[in-house]
Amino acid sequence: MFIEQLQASIQRQNSLLCVGIDPLYERLPPHIQQEAEPFFTFARDIIDATHEFVCAYKPQIAYFAARGAEHELEKTIDYIKKHHPSIPVILDSKRGDIGSTAEQYAVEAFDRYKADAVTVNPYMGFDAAEPFLRRADKGVILLCRTSNPGAADFQDLVCGDAPLYEIIASTVATQWNSAGNCCLVVGATAPEQLQRVRKLVGDMPILVPGVGAQGGDVKALLQAGLTTQGGGLVINASRSIIYAGSGTDYTVDVSKAAQELCQQINAQR
Amino acid sequence: MFIEQLQASIQRQNSLLCVGIDPLYERLPPHIQQEAEPFFTFARDIIDATHEFVCAYKPQIAYFAARGAEHELEKTIDYIKKHHPSIPVILDSKRGDIGSTAEQYAVEAFDRYKADAVTVNPYMGFDAAEPFLRRADKGVILLCRTSNPGAADFQDLVCGDAPLYEIIASTVATQWNSAGNCCLVVGATAPEQLQRVRKLVGDMPILVPGVGAQGGDVKALLQAGLTTQGGGLVINASRSIIYAGSGTDYTVDVSKAAQELCQQINAQR
Repeated sequence: MFIEQLQASIQRQNSLLCVGIDPLYERLPPHIQQEAEPFFTFARDIIDATHEFVCAYKPQIAYFAARGAEHELEKTIDYIKKHHPSIPVILDSKRGDIGSTAEQYAVEAFDRYKADAVTVNPYMGFDAAEPFLRRADKGVILLCRTSNPGAADFQDLVCGDAPLYEIIASTVATQWNSAGNCCLVVGATAPEQLQRVRKLVGDMPILVPGVGAQGGDVKALLQAGLTTQGGGLVINASRSIIYAGSGTDYTVDVSKAAQELCQQINAQR
Repeated sequence: MFIEQLQASIQRQNSLLCVGIDPLYERLPPHIQQEAEPFFTFARDIIDATHEFVCAYKPQIAYFAARGAEHELEKTIDYIKKHHPSIPVILDSKRGDIGSTAEQYAVEAFDRYKADAVTVNPYMGFDAAEPFLRRADKGVILLCRTSNPGAADFQDLVCGDAPLYEIIASTVATQWNSAGNCCLVVGATAPEQLQRVRKLVGDMPILVPGVGAQGGDVKALLQAGLTTQGGGLVINASRSIIYAGSGTDYTVDVSKAAQELCQQINAQR
């Protein structure tokens, strides 16, 4: 059960921080670029340097797929499962398609990569999400109000008496969550929207990207999004942590960046 | 230039038919399942059997990704490029993510797989589409009103004075299409919506899935969606063609199914 696993991880690790593993080849330290499996080597270093400070990891499949390195993504998730089996893995792939195809994407995420949860785009509606939702042991993290500037283009459009992202939040909470395995994505760059979503979805966990390189403010998002029990948020940072260091000892700064953000979040919880 | 390439292919092939290559292992003929590269072998057979009757091919990445067979997708597209270089390839992957990640998905589609066009989910807004849009030589096919039952859940919601899918159609036509490389997806199961989109986007090509296994009606969609010049539609069928035959001579029925649908469409144009 992903959500129980996530909540236990938040407690045990005393962290709301999720580290996003988004390895762009051009930004890897030179000695890592020369490795036979640069993405896996980098990911392993990041995991070794940060595992004390995270409640979850979120590898982003696009960076692996662009270079045909799917097997390095498999090895990355295997590595987390072997060495840190209680830290859940969220595969960030934002899939979404008609039912028969979505089934194959669910196989990709949960059976091939063995992720504990996956991000899913809700635009195509219920039957596009259903093959993920019926995997009751896995988490399904639906895009709601994303962190990018263009999020406002369609997600904020008012449909009837509420913006689209609120309708999606309500629909997920009241209609899609019968297995109790749904979560939402709401960007840290949109604290007002995060507050409105929190009111609509009770204690549902919310994945919050956009801290760090995208500029989201930690204090504002905590005030907006924490549950009454002081949890319910998984705060993702990718670039500001994984590229914090350079040179052969880059993991020293990576570890420090993760520890500092974890502590900064805890200090304001 | 994808759209010119597509229009030339429609003319030369005298076809609006696109064959979707969605190889589900369990549905492949037994002698194909035993091949070392069953997906590529099947795709090659499908291409050999149908290339006279199509204006485009649309491989669906989910079926390859579920079984870790990305290299067979690469070989499938290479095969089309080598043997039928004037038939465009649409990679159906429905990607969408923040700009820095969307760039990697554009690399995946256009540089790794060498597709001529890719399907993209517009929910995250302009900056999520922009890394695809700026590849002016490539086609960007935005989901608008999809063919599945759940399409109505959010796409039909009225925002102000128009449903969301119409707002997306207008936004793509008037704001996202500065390179002239945009197309839309509108399902064959929604001819009324197709007619409304056609009025909004002029001659923009529309990819129409949902004929065949999904039950879309050819006559209704042609009446709704053809441009005044009698073109502008790419009508996709997948399962009703690729699984038309069985046994070792299955391609005879595959070829016949493609020819019949191509002719059925032309008879009603």
